[in-house]
Amino acid sequence: MANWQSLSAEKRRLRDASFPSAWFRPVFDSPNSDPSPEIILSPKEIQITETEVTTLQLNLANGVWTAVEVYTAYAKRSVVAHRLTNCLTEIFYVHGLTRAKFLDAYLADTGKVVGPLHGIPISIKDMVNLKGVATTLGYVSWIDNIASTNSKIVDILEQAGAVLYVKTNVPQTLMWVETHNLLWGRSLNPYNTTLTTGGSSGGEGALVGARGSAIGVATDIGGSIRVPASFCGLYGLRPSFGRLPYGGISTTSPGANEIKTVVGPVCPSIGGVKLFVQSILAAQPWLNDPSCLRMKWDEDAYALKDRRGRLCFAVMWDDGVVQPYPPVRRAQEMVKNALEKAGHQVISWQAFKHKEACDILRQIWASSDPEELKAHLSRSGEPRLRSMDPSYDPSSEPPKPSNSKSKPPSTAGQLYKLHNKRAAACEEYLQQWNASISSTTTGRPIDAIIAPVAPWPAPPHGKNIYADYTMVWNMLDYTAMSVPVTTVDPELDVALHRDKFLNKMDELCWELYDPSLFKNAPVGIQIVGRTLEEEAAIRFSEIVETALKDYSVKRMTKL
Amino acid sequence: MANWQSLSAEKRRLRDASFPSAWFRPVFDSPNSDPSPEIILSPKEIQITETEVTTLQLNLANGVWTAVEVYTAYAKRSVVAHRLTNCLTEIFYVHGLTRAKFLDAYLADTGKVVGPLHGIPISIKDMVNLKGVATTLGYVSWIDNIASTNSKIVDILEQAGAVLYVKTNVPQTLMWVETHNLLWGRSLNPYNTTLTTGGSSGGEGALVGARGSAIGVATDIGGSIRVPASFCGLYGLRPSFGRLPYGGISTTSPGANEIKTVVGPVCPSIGGVKLFVQSILAAQPWLNDPSCLRMKWDEDAYALKDRRGRLCFAVMWDDGVVQPYPPVRRAQEMVKNALEKAGHQVISWQAFKHKEACDILRQIWASSDPEELKAHLSRSGEPRLRSMDPSYDPSSEPPKPSNSKSKPPSTAGQLYKLHNKRAAACEEYLQQWNASISSTTTGRPIDAIIAPVAPWPAPPHGKNIYADYTMVWNMLDYTAMSVPVTTVDPELDVALHRDKFLNKMDELCWELYDPSLFKNAPVGIQIVGRTLEEEAAIRFSEIVETALKDYSVKRMTKL
Repeated sequence: MANWQSLSAEKRRLRDASFPSAWFRPVFDSPNSDPSPEIILSPKEIQITETEVTTLQLNLANGVWTAVEVYTAYAKRSVVAHRLTNCLTEIFYVHGLTRAKFLDAYLADTGKVVGPLHGIPISIKDMVNLKGVATTLGYVSWIDNIASTNSKIVDILEQAGAVLYVKTNVPQTLMWVETHNLLWGRSLNPYNTTLTTGGSSGGEGALVGARGSAIGVATDIGGSIRVPASFCGLYGLRPSFGRLPYGGISTTSPGANEIKTVVGPVCPSIGGVKLFVQSILAAQPWLNDPSCLRMKWDEDAYALKDRRGRLCFAVMWDDGVVQPYPPVRRAQEMVKNALEKAGHQVISWQAFKHKEACDILRQIWASSDPEELKAHLSRSGEPRLRSMDPSYDPSSEPPKPSNSKSKPPSTAGQLYKLHNKRAAACEEYLQQWNASISSTTTGRPIDAIIAPVAPWPAPPHGKNIYADYTMVWNMLDYTAMSVPVTTVDPELDVALHRDKFLNKMDELCWELYDPSLFKNAPVGIQIVGRTLEEEAAIRFSEIVETALKDYSVKRMTKL
Repeated sequence: MANWQSLSAEKRRLRDASFPSAWFRPVFDSPNSDPSPEIILSPKEIQITETEVTTLQLNLANGVWTAVEVYTAYAKRSVVAHRLTNCLTEIFYVHGLTRAKFLDAYLADTGKVVGPLHGIPISIKDMVNLKGVATTLGYVSWIDNIASTNSKIVDILEQAGAVLYVKTNVPQTLMWVETHNLLWGRSLNPYNTTLTTGGSSGGEGALVGARGSAIGVATDIGGSIRVPASFCGLYGLRPSFGRLPYGGISTTSPGANEIKTVVGPVCPSIGGVKLFVQSILAAQPWLNDPSCLRMKWDEDAYALKDRRGRLCFAVMWDDGVVQPYPPVRRAQEMVKNALEKAGHQVISWQAFKHKEACDILRQIWASSDPEELKAHLSRSGEPRLRSMDPSYDPSSEPPKPSNSKSKPPSTAGQLYKLHNKRAAACEEYLQQWNASISSTTTGRPIDAIIAPVAPWPAPPHGKNIYADYTMVWNMLDYTAMSVPVTTVDPELDVALHRDKFLNKMDELCWELYDPSLFKNAPVGIQIVGRTLEEEAAIRFSEIVETALKDYSVKRMTKL
């Protein structure tokens, strides 16, 4: 049997050979690792890929652009994005083109769109299964794992008119907030390739961030939608367990159902996020997927019908463990000021037992059987990555026999005790939320929490070592949305000297900060609602977006 | 330390001493173990306890009856029911009376009801916690386990106006479909005390069946709502996981979250079931209980808005393992004929891998830590019940040391594999449901399954040895409702001779049948909808009830 290095190289070669050479050659032969889209995209094609998704939807429905035109623009731009960020795993442009042609014919014949996503190019994270296409999860041993059926969400998207054409990269084991594996290599941040694209949906973040896809289908078990979305300047929705159909999506620890991986969109616009969620729920996915809750899109919840008047947002400035960097603090202040200017109340939120919450999550994760993972690796002989640092050499990793265990596996009874700890933590947090009614002027508890996505914008590769800012909401199963706010400005976001640190981790993280390293990096925040508040979280994000726009217009008018 | 026998005897003595003696003495001094309610209830009080719940609600709201009158009638009748069936564990009549007085004063002062359950007497299964009252679960070692907080559903019920006054009996370990333990003893069927009341909510079945409570709060992990409801001639709703608030209810295997215990009502009328569910959801329980889904009552789903025209029901005549007795078959035929006469389509449903489904459930249950249960027992020294047969002497049970184990506990990884088996079974079953579209004339798959609740009506004590007819729906998390249909008629339900049996279990079960043993036993069916179809299941039950009434009127008119 060939070694994993040669298997991996051959797999990449095959992928590269399947790119249309008229697109591949000019882009990949360019001496510039960041070639301009103009090399292969016409001005109109560039315009298409930079059109907001709901406008794109209208232009497709009204025949302003054909599905083939839109597909071609995005497919070309995905090649450019891939050259820059190494974001693609499987490509199936013929599948996309065939679909786009069908859609154009359907619209011409019937005068109707196939569905709400008619002609919209949508990319899928590698673990989402498309029949006939490999699902590798970045494991060399999965090279020949050709999907025999579609994930449920794939059927729904295609029936709604979406055009699928590429899959995107993930980290080894999926349990990293960066994206690197020994099959496909490392994905880079499209805003600055010296920075990480985040993970585990880092391929989606890079591709959609570089406008090589209109909407990305991502997944999240600890931050995997929100981190790459935020690092790449996108909106990303982590819905609560069961809200969107997860059936038939691959994962490395199936059956660990206490903290479920969820599927959700990343998109340059909040309108695209809303369109994605509405389109999927309109298909009544629960009728065909037992993992999906029987919950329609709730227009009343979206319209905040029960919340007359001003809203109250609570800003969580830090989690009590790691202090965010100056640009993150600035983004939070911008949001706070904008919301206040828009007439809303903004109070502070003291992080409530966040470390304890994340510890419970870590313990539940640690209960999974390590043998399964080891089997994925040992079949090809590839080493397990112990770091995402580019200087780390995985081949230096001493090989471990498959049956070596550092500790005996948890029993079901021990796991159940962790579930009880989790239930108690969820109960306490909800009561904390409810107790906020004494601090609001709305007659209600707070409506949402504004929190960092991470202590930093996208850091250099290997440095994204702290994910508790996103993990806590997975533990609580709260709906959380990444919202882009600004980009790093070295003049505004100067490194601050601190004498006192909350702990060693805080100190270690703070010392990494140098604004010049973070050039161009997008900075976002999280908007957090309670469990199954997807509609409200989307609305809050729109409110924040509008408030930020109005605020910046007002500030400019003043000047 | 006193032995468990004397602790148990003293606990029962204390309970009996706390009954108002004006009620207790006439009822318990009666030489008749089935004393007439007339001994202590006035004709009006009897009328109150036999009034359908939604009419009771109206009469309370309109001041026809006061809450104190209604409370008093039900409290008295609970004493009569207890004498007959041994259904009560904790009694707190003063709490109920105080609440009823408050409700009357509130209505007099404001002209308004406190909430939709204003003045309705509701009993709670022992595991439901009421602050200040013991929760014993039938364990001698739990005698002093006084609840320090209310279960979430208790707060909601009381805020909606319910009057709580008694708790009801459960089986040891809660994992039996009969009701007997060494603290409180055995609960009996109110229709025929030689028969079991079912379990684990057998105290509720007995009490509500004997009209000692208007609605009972029960729980279900494998049939514990539906079996006692059906055996006692009641409606009983097993909602899907998370639909009703389970927070703060005690159980013996907390944290086993793959197959959650759920809470639901038992009631003599379907109107009472609907009122209960609507009242609880109107309180938005998800705002205060993280275990509860954010799902309002859906009036469109109840009105079957998306299902114009006739419905299609599928009758599952048997589960392929144990053939139901003649009266159960007759009840199913009655329902089939009535639905057809009402214009609906009725087709047959072949049980699809029901034994396999129940085996998965049993394996998941078996993963729980047996040490916890052993600890509950060993603290008092009471033996573990190995049978519910009255001839079985638990003291003959050889004592087992707490650390003796027949097999090593499951690991978390093994449990996760069971979860995956369950997910695959749920997927297959839903596809089976969807495939039924080829057999219906409605343009949809079947709307509901009509199935037995058990192979028999309430059997003699110790003989309720097969629960797969209810367990399968817990495994699938389908909404299932017990619906009373008829009572055993020894002339119609003659014992049939069978030569061929499906298997040993089928033969064993069939041989127990003798219609004379089942005198007066109620016979019901299950109506099964898909996951989270509570509204539709309630509507289907109403449709079946109406169809049965119309059908019997038509048949009588013909004669």
